Amino acid sequence: MCENGESNGVAAHGPTTSNGSHPVQGQPKSSPYQSVQDYLSNVGRYKIIESTLREGEQFANSFFDTETKIKIAKALDSFGVDMIELTNPCSSEQSFQDCKTIANLGLKANVRCHMDDAKKAVEAGVDGVDLVIGTSSFLREYSHGKSMAMIQKTALEVIEYLKGQNVEVRFSSEDSFRSDLVDILALYKAVDGAGVHRVGIADTVGGATPRMVYDLVRTLRGVVGCDIECHFHDDTGCSVANAHSALEAGATHVDTSVLGIGERNGITPLGAFMARMVVTAPEYTKSKYNLKELKALETLVADAVQINIPFNNPITGFCAFTHKAGIHAKAILANPSTYEILDPEIFGLSRYVSINSRITGWNAVRSRADQLGLSMTDEQVKEVTAKIKQMADIRPLAIDDTDSILRSFHLELQKA
Amino acid sequence: MCENGESNGVAAHGPTTSNGSHPVQGQPKSSPYQSVQDYLSNVGRYKIIESTLREGEQFANSFFDTETKIKIAKALDSFGVDMIELTNPCSSEQSFQDCKTIANLGLKANVRCHMDDAKKAVEAGVDGVDLVIGTSSFLREYSHGKSMAMIQKTALEVIEYLKGQNVEVRFSSEDSFRSDLVDILALYKAVDGAGVHRVGIADTVGGATPRMVYDLVRTLRGVVGCDIECHFHDDTGCSVANAHSALEAGATHVDTSVLGIGERNGITPLGAFMARMVVTAPEYTKSKYNLKELKALETLVADAVQINIPFNNPITGFCAFTHKAGIHAKAILANPSTYEILDPEIFGLSRYVSINSRITGWNAVRSRADQLGLSMTDEQVKEVTAKIKQMADIRPLAIDDTDSILRSFHLELQKA
Repeated sequence: MCENGESNGVAAHGPTTSNGSHPVQGQPKSSPYQSVQDYLSNVGRYKIIESTLREGEQFANSFFDTETKIKIAKALDSFGVDMIELTNPCSSEQSFQDCKTIANLGLKANVRCHMDDAKKAVEAGVDGVDLVIGTSSFLREYSHGKSMAMIQKTALEVIEYLKGQNVEVRFSSEDSFRSDLVDILALYKAVDGAGVHRVGIADTVGGATPRMVYDLVRTLRGVVGCDIECHFHDDTGCSVANAHSALEAGATHVDTSVLGIGERNGITPLGAFMARMVVTAPEYTKSKYNLKELKALETLVADAVQINIPFNNPITGFCAFTHKAGIHAKAILANPSTYEILDPEIFGLSRYVSINSRITGWNAVRSRADQLGLSMTDEQVKEVTAKIKQMADIRPLAIDDTDSILRSFHLELQKA
Repeated sequence: MCENGESNGVAAHGPTTSNGSHPVQGQPKSSPYQSVQDYLSNVGRYKIIESTLREGEQFANSFFDTETKIKIAKALDSFGVDMIELTNPCSSEQSFQDCKTIANLGLKANVRCHMDDAKKAVEAGVDGVDLVIGTSSFLREYSHGKSMAMIQKTALEVIEYLKGQNVEVRFSSEDSFRSDLVDILALYKAVDGAGVHRVGIADTVGGATPRMVYDLVRTLRGVVGCDIECHFHDDTGCSVANAHSALEAGATHVDTSVLGIGERNGITPLGAFMARMVVTAPEYTKSKYNLKELKALETLVADAVQINIPFNNPITGFCAFTHKAGIHAKAILANPSTYEILDPEIFGLSRYVSINSRITGWNAVRSRADQLGLSMTDEQVKEVTAKIKQMADIRPLAIDDTDSILRSFHLELQKA
């Protein structure tokens, strides 16, 4: 059962909306990958549980003082995430104080804490509590030592307590993909019956593949009526695809952190997930989240934990919208959709067509010459393109190098 | 038809070997994700076509001089990739010379060039040639302007020529996922019939999802008998998962580049793909590729193109094997498989359990105290853990900070 008014549980599934399933932006009508009706899929109405202030605090470099936590929480709220997750208030005295402070900021996003000690969370004034317990044989043996029966008994007691406290309750298994399927399904069924608002699955070690995720979530979707939240680590580079796959199978909520910061190499990064979802569900994603704030949000967090934004980051990596090869540049200049599935303007960014290399082409050079106001015939542009390629064979060229080649070539033409 | 002795085409499919399909490392016997027989899957016998010297040259920062290209080619060969792909020798005079030089290095890996001008490739002495043409309506209209009939006619002529030249031939469509399914299947069937060794599909704009990939590759697998190669861009963060999904659906070869460098934010990164495959197919991956060379290979390429290895890079990111949260650290110390799907030793790396934060736990602190030779009771360790948490609430702690807290606490105990 589910008490959440905006439930996306099985019972609440209507037909997929026009933006609900696989409409790839700018796709030709004849494509086999056009939107198909898929009643299971939630790709067009997913929600984000943002965990930079919980999972992100487990990142090796993280030390968030209260002021930084408040800044990040406000920026996440302004971006439009649905829930902000905080560190367990039992971790330290400051964690408890920070939890209280942020829960009282009056943010639109719900504030949840991820913890075992439910009373301390209620005392801190959060909107929701996440109960989490390791259910794989690995964690049961080497971490907490509890049996499945004991886990279920404890969970039901805590849920009973929290239901009286007017907070949202989620129950999650940890290391779900290495847990016994029958065991965890029984557990989820029991807590769903006890009235939790949401159950969660977690790929704690980051080893799941999109097909494993699809299978597990689809199975779980048939067992519980409440919302389903998913948490994916990125150890094997699949955290974004796994989140997408979970939504296709009927999950309702995805955990993210800014730049993916978290334990080890982290979890599903908010930015890369937005890149994925703006392609899969453009209307929903663009209307719900303030995508133009992504770059500032990533910069805020990167500065706070003293890291560089990865060169290959989707959307905000320094070259995410740079086109270099001649064949690409020609087409991009004619129609950006040829080599771009993402429109940089959605994120307040712009594209750049590079002509400073030996793999450039004359169409790109023509475009730059036009920008510089240098009028030339096609033959002349081809001639100067050959000169640029020749120079680029010898050494790396900067944009001012190619500009001066263009200008001096043009000057020679005037003289001739 | 397929002339390649090691074909993985439909006809050659035997039962999946013990390492062939989804055996997740260290997985308990009761897991639902244990290996299942899957006759379509090639996850246990995939091959790598390494494109750092072709796709990677399209990366914004790339300028490879001849010496650097030779170093990278030799390092890739030593790592064990199956084929090394080079830039089209028609791009510039130096590209042609470099192609000749590398083709004559006597590497074990085959050397292929990716191009339209087949004669120049043969002249450069490569082992294989890749014919590539954009088949989406976008590329046909805005890039090259050719009809499907014209594409097919040209392709068959070039294939006929190359078959007489004793080189391996691949035919690939560009922007395959936005191409008309019926058109490209007809084209692939025709070139397969004409005797190409391999057909390729490319997610040129990086918008495909693992399910789209599975559907397209599985369909193609039923249409052609030759090998199938896949090329995935990472604009929406799915390039690793897409490569895995393609192998599950019967693809035989995956394109990678070191750190994923390529046009825009790049393609499937070799390192992240290795992280994925060493989990999916541990025996095959560990025996075929020299995983201990990964870090040096990534460093070589990162230095050549002046980038930092991303903080969140699978395997070689600075914190990929760092454990921080108390609950994680306790279990990791008891059994690393609890929170690690990848064993750092496979890559010649080591793990690090951090105790310098407010989310640390006393088991991790006990382990560090033991390393320092400081004998304490459990109660004493818990007491000093509280002190560390208290300090970590105030400011970021380095490892020597916590070590001095431990040492001075221990000294006080001796005095008492």
